[in-house]
Amino acid sequence: MLEKTIEAIEALDEEAMAAAQAHQERLALPPGSLGRLHELAVKMAGMTRRPRPLVQRLAVITMAGDHGVAAQGVSKFPQEVTREMVANFARGGAAINVLTRHVGARLTVVDMGVAGPEMDIDMLDSDSVRFASRRIAPGTRDISKGPAMNRNQAVQALEAGIRVFMEEKEKGVDAVGTGDMGIANTTPSSAIAAAMLKVSPGRVVNRGTGIDDAALDNKVQVVARALEVNHPDPTDPIDVLAKVGGYEIGGIAGVILGACAHRVPVVVDGFISTAAALVASAFHPEVKHYLFSGHQSAVEGHRLMLTALGIEPMIDLGMRLGEGTGAAFGLSILAAASRVATEMLTFDEAQVSGPGDDAH
Amino acid sequence: MLEKTIEAIEALDEEAMAAAQAHQERLALPPGSLGRLHELAVKMAGMTRRPRPLVQRLAVITMAGDHGVAAQGVSKFPQEVTREMVANFARGGAAINVLTRHVGARLTVVDMGVAGPEMDIDMLDSDSVRFASRRIAPGTRDISKGPAMNRNQAVQALEAGIRVFMEEKEKGVDAVGTGDMGIANTTPSSAIAAAMLKVSPGRVVNRGTGIDDAALDNKVQVVARALEVNHPDPTDPIDVLAKVGGYEIGGIAGVILGACAHRVPVVVDGFISTAAALVASAFHPEVKHYLFSGHQSAVEGHRLMLTALGIEPMIDLGMRLGEGTGAAFGLSILAAASRVATEMLTFDEAQVSGPGDDAH
Repeated sequence: MLEKTIEAIEALDEEAMAAAQAHQERLALPPGSLGRLHELAVKMAGMTRRPRPLVQRLAVITMAGDHGVAAQGVSKFPQEVTREMVANFARGGAAINVLTRHVGARLTVVDMGVAGPEMDIDMLDSDSVRFASRRIAPGTRDISKGPAMNRNQAVQALEAGIRVFMEEKEKGVDAVGTGDMGIANTTPSSAIAAAMLKVSPGRVVNRGTGIDDAALDNKVQVVARALEVNHPDPTDPIDVLAKVGGYEIGGIAGVILGACAHRVPVVVDGFISTAAALVASAFHPEVKHYLFSGHQSAVEGHRLMLTALGIEPMIDLGMRLGEGTGAAFGLSILAAASRVATEMLTFDEAQVSGPGDDAH
Repeated sequence: MLEKTIEAIEALDEEAMAAAQAHQERLALPPGSLGRLHELAVKMAGMTRRPRPLVQRLAVITMAGDHGVAAQGVSKFPQEVTREMVANFARGGAAINVLTRHVGARLTVVDMGVAGPEMDIDMLDSDSVRFASRRIAPGTRDISKGPAMNRNQAVQALEAGIRVFMEEKEKGVDAVGTGDMGIANTTPSSAIAAAMLKVSPGRVVNRGTGIDDAALDNKVQVVARALEVNHPDPTDPIDVLAKVGGYEIGGIAGVILGACAHRVPVVVDGFISTAAALVASAFHPEVKHYLFSGHQSAVEGHRLMLTALGIEPMIDLGMRLGEGTGAAFGLSILAAASRVATEMLTFDEAQVSGPGDDAH
């Protein structure tokens, strides 16, 4: 299934993009004066093959998982918080609930591998939030001591992500955003970034939820150890994911691959989601062309990954929460760009004189 | 009426801000991880005197006016475009219609002084857009030759803006955004900025809708001439507005003053609205504390004005359209910050362990 999904990924439609660009230039405003909204609309045209892409039905998929490396003191928060936050998502009280409601996006929360026993689905599924259990294992193993998971589990995580995307697709979705929840997951994300970008851990490790200087030094060493112990192969994304990744990271990479294969624009959240995007983009050279970055995260290392992917964040509100909160804002901006493409009148339609038009 | 409005402006409520800050710190997320959303919520608390400010009912007020200085070749577009665009606003086909619909804001379009005869109100008022005629005159006089208007007309424009705000207030509004439409209005806005910030015209004049190098040189000279001929007094905002301003700029400044006097957060759009904010802020030292900047405009000179006002734009999408389009995005972000303050659960409410909490 993973292979078939990857094979289905194609280039953006240049013809639709040219038609979209021509349409944007006819809109009743000074040429280019809506800045990036024009570019976003043209890029979505290339994905959707529609010169005037309709992007209304929005969905955020937030993947949760735990990490054995939490035992190395890399986070300020205890591991139970992952499980507690999944329950909070179900209750509707978290930031991602508030922000998906705000932008009019559906929210799906997926247990990809939360530590402890299976979570109670009936308790968690609600009218406003879909909950899906796709557990591969109750958390990864400690990457500072060996691989996070085996190769088979990495493929399972990717395929679970593809399936979750397909379920959203069946309900109808025009653009999808990714999100994460997992205590300690900036550590595997940093390891993925260091491995795939071939940079030293010090350049991508960050304070995550807010650790102090001593904990930051320790985290750099933990990531360095994870890379030494595991030797992930940067040309093999399954190897990287299995050795230094996480279940929710694999799930997010799967969502991205599914979206690309079905020509659905995908908005990547912050640091963890962008690490997953690095994994996904290593499967096929066209993947990165389907990506939008919701926001510039306030944590170190995010910018380096975005540069490698060649994508520019839409906003910078100094956020560093994850959950899909940056993706939610990004989806709203894509929807705005879609409305510009589909609802605005052209100079002719609006009977407005163009620049230097002396006919009036 | 202008004086009474100015007298009613008070400082932000420090107590409400401290309570708001304390509430933000209890929310179930790593401290400060929603970045500027926390700051925006705290600032709105100071304005509204509510520790958890409810900002749901949004309105954009777009002020239109014409400029005698258009005769000096400072714009690529003919003057008729102002009138044609007002009709386009009424038809619902302009960018500001699309973006106010997108963010769930009402739109009011005001004729403050469009060139030509009175516009047909019945034709323009519609279900989705309120149209108000508050014409002071059919366009200003050419500022490169003398004052734009007399002092009495400047006060009339300010008071018309205050009244339009009051009408929105009566309908119920939690935050208001400003917008402008007026061919050539970056020229008086540049003159206002140069006069009030005491900088040379070259530092604030920009390409507006997209003029070329030769036209830009001419525009710098036109602004320099406007300042030489008129000698606006930077300590007297009515003098600046009358000599080198515009009717829609006065109207926007009036909206801002009205909003401040009624403790309603106001989102300033781009270059023209920010020039109006400079005028408004010269009436009372507390005005600037009620301002939010919707976005960083792509035109030169905007940053200099924002720095003088001490406000930081919320987004930067490379836009430079006006109409209130940047304010619309800003209003949506304020509403998001309000939802964080009013809908998110705290650590206790969500039963989530805090940082370094070993009770679990």
